[in-house]
Amino acid sequence: MNPILIDGQWRPATQIGEFEASNPCTSEPLGEKYPISGWDDCSAALDAARIAAEELELAPDEQIAGFLDRYSERLSDAAAEICAQAETETALSLKPRLLDVEMPRTINQLRLAAKSVREGAWRSPVVDREAGIRSCYGPIGPALIFGPNNFPFAFNAVSGGDFAAAIAAGNPVIAKAHSAHPGTSRMLAEQAHLAVADSGLPAATVQMLFGLGRTDGLRMVSDPRLSVASFTGSRGGGLALKNAADTVGTPIYLEMSSVNPVFFLPGAIAERGDDLPGELVGSCLMGVGQFCTSPNMFVLMQSEASSQFLDAVKSQLDSGPVGALLTGSGLESLQQSIASLREAGADVLAGGQIVEQPGYRFQNTLLQTTGKRFLQAPDALQTEAFGPATLAVVVDDAEEALAVAAKVEGSLTGCIYSATDGSDDPLAEQLMRVLRRNVGRLLNDKMPTGVAVSPAMNHGGPFPATGHPGFTAVGLPASIRRFAKLDCYDNIRESRLPTCLRE
Amino acid sequence: MNPILIDGQWRPATQIGEFEASNPCTSEPLGEKYPISGWDDCSAALDAARIAAEELELAPDEQIAGFLDRYSERLSDAAAEICAQAETETALSLKPRLLDVEMPRTINQLRLAAKSVREGAWRSPVVDREAGIRSCYGPIGPALIFGPNNFPFAFNAVSGGDFAAAIAAGNPVIAKAHSAHPGTSRMLAEQAHLAVADSGLPAATVQMLFGLGRTDGLRMVSDPRLSVASFTGSRGGGLALKNAADTVGTPIYLEMSSVNPVFFLPGAIAERGDDLPGELVGSCLMGVGQFCTSPNMFVLMQSEASSQFLDAVKSQLDSGPVGALLTGSGLESLQQSIASLREAGADVLAGGQIVEQPGYRFQNTLLQTTGKRFLQAPDALQTEAFGPATLAVVVDDAEEALAVAAKVEGSLTGCIYSATDGSDDPLAEQLMRVLRRNVGRLLNDKMPTGVAVSPAMNHGGPFPATGHPGFTAVGLPASIRRFAKLDCYDNIRESRLPTCLRE
Repeated sequence: MNPILIDGQWRPATQIGEFEASNPCTSEPLGEKYPISGWDDCSAALDAARIAAEELELAPDEQIAGFLDRYSERLSDAAAEICAQAETETALSLKPRLLDVEMPRTINQLRLAAKSVREGAWRSPVVDREAGIRSCYGPIGPALIFGPNNFPFAFNAVSGGDFAAAIAAGNPVIAKAHSAHPGTSRMLAEQAHLAVADSGLPAATVQMLFGLGRTDGLRMVSDPRLSVASFTGSRGGGLALKNAADTVGTPIYLEMSSVNPVFFLPGAIAERGDDLPGELVGSCLMGVGQFCTSPNMFVLMQSEASSQFLDAVKSQLDSGPVGALLTGSGLESLQQSIASLREAGADVLAGGQIVEQPGYRFQNTLLQTTGKRFLQAPDALQTEAFGPATLAVVVDDAEEALAVAAKVEGSLTGCIYSATDGSDDPLAEQLMRVLRRNVGRLLNDKMPTGVAVSPAMNHGGPFPATGHPGFTAVGLPASIRRFAKLDCYDNIRESRLPTCLRE
Repeated sequence: MNPILIDGQWRPATQIGEFEASNPCTSEPLGEKYPISGWDDCSAALDAARIAAEELELAPDEQIAGFLDRYSERLSDAAAEICAQAETETALSLKPRLLDVEMPRTINQLRLAAKSVREGAWRSPVVDREAGIRSCYGPIGPALIFGPNNFPFAFNAVSGGDFAAAIAAGNPVIAKAHSAHPGTSRMLAEQAHLAVADSGLPAATVQMLFGLGRTDGLRMVSDPRLSVASFTGSRGGGLALKNAADTVGTPIYLEMSSVNPVFFLPGAIAERGDDLPGELVGSCLMGVGQFCTSPNMFVLMQSEASSQFLDAVKSQLDSGPVGALLTGSGLESLQQSIASLREAGADVLAGGQIVEQPGYRFQNTLLQTTGKRFLQAPDALQTEAFGPATLAVVVDDAEEALAVAAKVEGSLTGCIYSATDGSDDPLAEQLMRVLRRNVGRLLNDKMPTGVAVSPAMNHGGPFPATGHPGFTAVGLPASIRRFAKLDCYDNIRESRLPTCLRE
C-alpha cells in the first residue's frame, strides 16, 4: 500500500478503502494499491496546511521562486521515469505527447511561475501616497486542488497550472491526485517533496492524498481551515464541490465541460474545403478527444459544399486511429452521452459504438443535427461527450447560425473560420459579438485545442465552463490571481508594510 | 403612485403591492406611494437590459464616459433638491453629511469612473504578438444592483459605486431602489435617465424598480438573462441572493455585515488614553453607527488604564447625541442583536435600550465581555449590531489578544493602535499578520469609518464580509473589474479586435 504525503512525511493513510489504476490499452489493473483516506487524513492535512500558510507568509519571494525552480529541475532529471509511468497509466503517447510536449510544458509553467514570483506583477501594488493607502494582492491561504484525468502533468494537482499558481501566491497546496494516474502523481509528489526540503519551505507546503470518500471531499471544501479550492473535471463533480464551497463562502475555481463550437462560414469552405476537415478531425482526435477545448460541436450552412465537407469529416474519422480512452468510467460516460445526444435529435453519421477490443475504446464519432432541432433542445444537444465525438449542426442560413451561437452554453472557446477575401465578414463579425458573450477565448481560422502558456491566454469562460468568467487557469501571471486576496494597508507604518509597498 | 423606469420610459408598474417611506425622526409615513412590481416588470427590465447590453458593446468609450460625466453634472445642478429629499427620508444631516460630503463623493465617483473609461487601464490589455494571442477585460452583461439603506447617494443602486463601475465596464444596470429612500432614488434615476438621453446611450442602460416580491428578487438573480448582481446590505438578504445566484453560476458581489475590530495596545493607551476614547466614540456614532466599517468590537488588555479607557468611552457614549436610525426595521434588528449579544455573554455598560421619543432611536450602547467568554462563543459575540453599539473585549494578555484576532470573522477592516515608541511593536506585528488573513483593509492608529475613494482602497474582505476576498467595491478602476469578463482573442484578424488590442 502506497503512503500519503502529509506534513512533510510519507506516511500510511488512515484508510477507509483502496483502489488501483488500470492500463487503458488493456483494461487490466496495474497491481499497485493506493489508499482511500478517512477524514483523519483530511483533517491532518488541513491542520498542517494552516500552519504552513502562516510560515509561508514570512518566506521571502526568492525562497518560493527557488522552490518552483528546484522542482522544475527535479522534474527535468526524472522526466523519463515519470513519463514512462504516465504512459502506462494513461495510454497517452510517450513521444511526442508526454516526453516532448506535456512534460516540457509543465516544467516551463513552474519556471514561469518562479519568474512571476520574482517579478511580482501579480501583486498589482497600488500606492496612494497622499491618502496614505496602499494595496496589493497577497496569499489567500491553504488551497485544495483536484486535478483531472486528461493531463497527468500539466494539470496535475501536484505539478500543474493550479499548483504552480497557488504556490506562487504563497499558499500551501493539498493535492488530490486523480485516481486514473496515482503512480504518476506519487512520482511527481516525491520530487515536489524533495524540492520543498531543498528550498527550506515549510514541510506542509505540498501535501497529497490519493483518494477521498465523496462526502469527505465536500467536507474538506467547506472546512473553515481551507481558504480556496480548484477543480478540473466533469460538470457533476464540479457542481457538487461548488455547492459545498459556496455555502461557506470559500472561493472555488472550476473548469468543467465545454462545448467549444467551431463555425465554418461558406466562404471558408469554398476556399479551404479540402483542408479544413483534416484540421477539424485532427483537433477532435487530439488526446483521443479528451481535451477541455476539444471541438464538440461545429456549425455549417446547408449547401452542396457543406455536404462534401461532412463526407470528408466522416471519412477521416472513420479511417482515423481509435485511441484508448483514459478510464473505464470515461468510456461509460461517453456511451451514455452519445445515447443522450441521439435521443435529443442527433443522428449518427460515423462511429457511435464501443469498440470490442482490449482497452477502453470508442469509435470516432460524428453526429449531425439541424439548426432547428438544435434550437428546440439546445441544452440536451450540448450534453458533454468527453472523447472522440463531435456534433455537426447544419443551419439553413445566417440568421439560424446566429441563433445557434446565442444558445451556445458558457464555453472555454468559440471559433470562426471565414473567407480570406472578406466575403464572410459581415456574418463573421456578428457571430464574433454573439460568441464573445458565451466564451472565454475567441479564435479565427484556428482550432481551439492548443492552449498556449501565454500571458495573454484565457483558459476560462462563463458558467458552466467555469465558475467565474473573470479568471483564467492558464497564463502567468494572471492565473495566480485566483489564489490571491486583496490586502489594503491604510496608514500602516512603513516597517510593517509588505516589501512591494514600501518606499 | 410613482412610476418605474423600464426601457427608457417612466411607466406604471404591474403592481402587486405598494409601500411608502417614513421620516426616521418622527416615524411618520411620508405619504408618497411607491409600487412593488410583479414579475412582468422584472422580466421586461431583463429583456430590455439584454438588448441594451448588445447595443452598448458598440458604444465608443467616449460615449459611456460622456454619460457618466453628464450624469455627474446633472447631479451637481440638482444637488440641493435631492439632498433635501434624502434628509427627509434618512434623517442624515443635510450639512455636512449629505450636501458637503456624500453628494460630492458620489459626483466624484461618477467622474472618476468616466476617467477610468477614457484611460482604459481597467481592461488590462495583454498582447502576445509572437503567439498571436491578446486579451483584455470587457463588459460582462446586464447587472442587477441592490443598494443599501445607509448611503442614499454614494452606494445607491442608481448612482453609487456599483452603478458607476457596472456602467464603466459597458453594462446596463437594473437598479433596485432601497425602500427606505425611494423618493431620493427616483430623483437620482430621473437625472440618470435624462443623462442617458443626453449622451445617446441605449434607452435601457439605466432602469429602476422600487420594490420586488422577495421571491422575484431571487428569481431575477437566477434568471439567465442576467449576467451579474451586486448587493449591499444585511447578511440574511445577501446570503439568500448569493444562494440563488450560485445555483446558476452567476457572479454576485456582496457587501454584508462586518465587525471591524479595533485593537488598542497597552502602549497606545498609555500614550494617548485621553484622546482615543473620543476617536472611537466618534467613529462608532458616525452615521448613527450605520456604516459598514463601523467598529463593532474593540479589544484591550485588562489593566487600570483600560478600565479608565472604558469609563471614558461609556461616559462619551452616554453624553453623545442619540441620532435617528434609518428605518424602523433597523431599530428592531438592533434591539434583537443587543439581546443576542447579552445572551451570548456580553454585559451592558451603557445604553442598551430603545429610546421612547419620536423617531427610530436607540441609546448609544457599550457592551463588554472577556476574552475567555469571546473565545467560547466567537460567532454569537460577533452578531451584527447595525447602529450605535460596540462591544469591548477585555483580554488577559497578548496571547489571548492573538487568539481573539484569529477568531475575528471575515471583516472589511481591522485596526491596531500601538505606541509610537515601539514598545507595542512585537505584539502589533503579530496581530497584523493574524488580522491580515481575516480582513480586507488593515489600519494603524486610525478609525476605519473613512473609506477614501482611492485607487489603492480595498472595500472588501473575506466571507462573510463579502462573497470573495479578491474584489473591492470602492476605488477606481479596481472596482470595475467586478463587472467585467476576461476576453481572449486568439489569431483574430486585426479589424475584428477591440480597439485596445489593435496595433
